[in-house]
Amino acid sequence: MRFSQGVEWMLHSVALLAQAPAGMAVSRRVLAEHYGLPEPYLAKPLKALVRAGILTASSGPSGGFRLAGRPEDITVLDIVEAVEGTSPPFICQEIRQQGTAGLSPAVCQKPCAVATMMDHAHQAWRASLRGITVVDLVKSTPKAIRDRNRADFAARLSG
Amino acid sequence: MRFSQGVEWMLHSVALLAQAPAGMAVSRRVLAEHYGLPEPYLAKPLKALVRAGILTASSGPSGGFRLAGRPEDITVLDIVEAVEGTSPPFICQEIRQQGTAGLSPAVCQKPCAVATMMDHAHQAWRASLRGITVVDLVKSTPKAIRDRNRADFAARLSG
Repeated sequence: MRFSQGVEWMLHSVALLAQAPAGMAVSRRVLAEHYGLPEPYLAKPLKALVRAGILTASSGPSGGFRLAGRPEDITVLDIVEAVEGTSPPFICQEIRQQGTAGLSPAVCQKPCAVATMMDHAHQAWRASLRGITVVDLVKSTPKAIRDRNRADFAARLSG
Repeated sequence: MRFSQGVEWMLHSVALLAQAPAGMAVSRRVLAEHYGLPEPYLAKPLKALVRAGILTASSGPSGGFRLAGRPEDITVLDIVEAVEGTSPPFICQEIRQQGTAGLSPAVCQKPCAVATMMDHAHQAWRASLRGITVVDLVKSTPKAIRDRNRADFAARLSG
């Protein structure tokens, strides 16, 4: 069981977009070049972030992607679930209702112990990722790298 | 991203094996019939549990599967990772070292913020599942069902 690479790409890309000068849109090509990623494959996860209301997209020569809101309001969970979907990894098939020992639906109104504790673990995972915002991600980036990103953006704006 | 069905099958099967009379081995066929599962598909996850030291397998007419140890020493995490593997869902590809903004390996000795917090979330998930044992699972099963399971096992032993 493994996340798509889009999760890593989008977490880094959103953190980078949070470092762009106010009002500047960053194209898919620039994001791809920045991290050495295959540009066509960025289309799908970027579209997912727009659909989730995390990014806005604009077209035209200076078009591209921007954060739709404040970076302190975007959590890592928002980004991961926008790319991977919100479906939990464990889906209960109610096997307790099947077979020679099958229970009647009437006694299975509540989730069984297996489904309950798999859900608890999933919620613990979600809570961990919900506790981190894009601001936290940017703050954890060494200053030298943030300075270089700022210089890169300035060069693109002036070039 | 979704777990294989073997996760659900094995969590229920191990809980059932914990309810078998001492010394009784339960065949793959009986497990399949109990929960209405496709018997051939149980082979792989059952083998994984044997390989992980959670179950022992014996052959012959009264052969089958038994818990290898005490149910209070087997955690839900043990079972899930035996079936799904221990590889985390997020694998860092170090994209910060790629592209026009690529960092040198020298400054990337430590995992980046993205990899670190994805690992923290994974560890929160693991801790949640590590905190529940097979005894807890059995205790959460309604007494009426445990009684019926006991009667089923007794009937098979005497039959």
